[in-house]
Amino acid sequence: MFFQITDIIGTIAFAISGALVAMNKRMDPFGVLIIASVTAVGGGTLRDVMVGVNPVVWMKDITYIYVIVGSTIFAVVFRRWISYLRKSLFLFDTIGIGVFTVIGIETGLHANLHPIICIALGTMTACFGGVLRDILCNEIPVIFRKEIYATACILGGATYFLLREHLESQNYLFVIAGLVVILVRILAVKFEISLPNLYKKEDVIEP
Amino acid sequence: MFFQITDIIGTIAFAISGALVAMNKRMDPFGVLIIASVTAVGGGTLRDVMVGVNPVVWMKDITYIYVIVGSTIFAVVFRRWISYLRKSLFLFDTIGIGVFTVIGIETGLHANLHPIICIALGTMTACFGGVLRDILCNEIPVIFRKEIYATACILGGATYFLLREHLESQNYLFVIAGLVVILVRILAVKFEISLPNLYKKEDVIEP
Amino acid sequence: MFFQITDIIGTIAFAISGALVAMNKRMDPFGVLIIASVTAVGGGTLRDVMVGVNPVVWMKDITYIYVIVGSTIFAVVFRRWISYLRKSLFLFDTIGIGVFTVIGIETGLHANLHPIICIALGTMTACFGGVLRDILCNEIPVIFRKEIYATACILGGATYFLLREHLESQNYLFVIAGLVVILVRILAVKFEISLPNLYKKEDVIEP
Repeated sequence: MFFQITDIIGTIAFAISGALVAMNKRMDPFGVLIIASVTAVGGGTLRDVMVGVNPVVWMKDITYIYVIVGSTIFAVVFRRWISYLRKSLFLFDTIGIGVFTVIGIETGLHANLHPIICIALGTMTACFGGVLRDILCNEIPVIFRKEIYATACILGGATYFLLREHLESQNYLFVIAGLVVILVRILAVKFEISLPNLYKKEDVIEP
Repeated sequence: MFFQITDIIGTIAFAISGALVAMNKRMDPFGVLIIASVTAVGGGTLRDVMVGVNPVVWMKDITYIYVIVGSTIFAVVFRRWISYLRKSLFLFDTIGIGVFTVIGIETGLHANLHPIICIALGTMTACFGGVLRDILCNEIPVIFRKEIYATACILGGATYFLLREHLESQNYLFVIAGLVVILVRILAVKFEISLPNLYKKEDVIEP
Repeated sequence: MFFQITDIIGTIAFAISGALVAMNKRMDPFGVLIIASVTAVGGGTLRDVMVGVNPVVWMKDITYIYVIVGSTIFAVVFRRWISYLRKSLFLFDTIGIGVFTVIGIETGLHANLHPIICIALGTMTACFGGVLRDILCNEIPVIFRKEIYATACILGGATYFLLREHLESQNYLFVIAGLVVILVRILAVKFEISLPNLYKKEDVIEP
C-alpha cells in the first residue's frame, strides 16, 4: 500500500517532467503524451525486458496509463502556472527515484541476481526514463552531465546491501534505502554538490 | 493470406521510407539497409519484446529480410525517380499503419491484455518503426510534431473494441479497424487536419 | 577459455572507446561509466532481448561489470596519454568485433534460427554497442557513414555458413569466421577501402 502510493507519486512526477520537456520542444498533444509515458515507465520497461519479466509491468496494471494520461492533461492545461509548482515537482521527482530504485533492486533480488547487478537495475529503473525522454527529444541525456542523480541511486542501493546482514526486515531495508536516495539528492541540490569535473582547458581528448 | 499480403505491402513502404531518410543523411549502403530494416520491423520488435514474444517476429520468418533487402535495393537504384512514386508510397505507408495497428492489437489480445494496452500496442507497432528511424538519424521523431498519424491508429483501435460487442467475426473487426486507420489518415492529409497547436507566442515553458 | 579471453579483450576495447566518446562530450564520471557500459554490452543485450535469453548475459556474469569499471577508470585516468595507445586500441576493437560476431552467430544457432538471421545477430552484437553509444551522445551512428565495419561482420558470418558443410569442428569454424572479420577490417582500414558512395552532387532526394 505504502509502496503503491509512492510509486504513483513518482509516476506522476516523471510524467509531468516528460510532458514539460516535450512541450518545450513544441510537440503536438500526442507527442507530449508519448514522451510523458516513456519518461514515467521507460526505466521500468527496460529493467523488465532485460530481466525477462513479461509482459512488462505497466501492461499488467492499467493504473499506470490512467495516472500518466491524467498527469499529462494536468501538465498541458496548467503549463503556464506549473513553474509555481517547481518545488513540489522536485520533491515528487525525488520521491520517485527513491521508490523506483527500491523497486528495481527488488526485481533483481527476485531473479537471484548479484547485489551489484541489483543496484544497477535500481539505478536503471530510476534514471533511464529520463534518459529515453532526452533521446526522444534529441538531447544528450541531462543526467550524464549534471547533478548527483544516479549517484544517489547507487548510494541508496549500496546501503541496502550493506545493512542487509544487520537488519532482518526487508521492508525496513527498502524504506531506509529509499530514504538514503532521497536525502542524498536533496542535500546534493541544496548544497550544489556535483560530481568532480574531469576536464581542464588543456585537455585534448580525441576518440 | 489477405493479412500477409498487406503486411508485406506495409513492410515495403516502411523500408523504402527508411531508406530515403537514410540516403538524405548521406549514409553508406550498410547504414541505408539498417535504417530501412529498423523502420520496417522496429515497431513490431519493440512490441514483441515488451509482451514477451521470443524470438521476435522477423527472426522466425525470413520473408521480412528478403522484402526489406529488395525494397532497399529498389530505393537505392531508383532514388532519383522515386519522387514520382510519392502517391503510391503514401498509399502503401497508410495501408502499412492500418495493418500494423491490427497486428499489434491481435498480439495484445493473444496475451490477454486490457483493451487500452492493446490499442497502445497497435499504435506502437505502427508508429515506433518511424520513431526509431528518426532517432537513429538524429532527428526529433516527426510523428511527435506533425499530422494525424498515431491518432489514426488510436481511433482504429478504439473502433475495434467499441464494435466488439456487436460483431461476432474477429476478421471483420480487424478489417474495419484497419480501414478506419487508413480512412482517418487519408482524410486528415487531404483536408490538412492536424492536432490542435498547444502553443501561443507568449507561452514560456521551462521544464 | 580462448573465447572468454578474447571476449574480455573486446569488452575492454569497447568500454574504453565508449569512455573516450563520453569524455569528448564533457560528461560527468557517471555519464562516462554509463556510455562505456552501453558500448561494451549494448549489442549483446539487444541480441539477448530479441532472441529471448533472459536475464541478459552481463547480468549472469559479474566479470563484465568489473572489466567495464576497470576499463573506464583506466580511460579516465590516462585520458591525456591514451592517444599513444591508438594502435593497440584499434587492434583490441577489431578483435572485439570478431569475437562478438561469433558469439552472436552462436546465440542464433542455439535458438535454431535461419543462417541469415544468425549473421544479422552476429553483426548486431558487434555493431550496436557503438550505435547505442552514438545515439546516447546525440550523434548519427558513425558506422552508418564510415569504414567497412558491419560489412566485415557480415562477410565473417557468411564464411561460417559457407564452410559449414566442409568442416566438422564448430570451434574451427568459429575461429575462421572471427579471423575473416578481423582480416577484412584491418585490410579495409590499411588500404582505405570503404563502401561505394551513393551520392552525386546533382542527387536530389526528398523523403
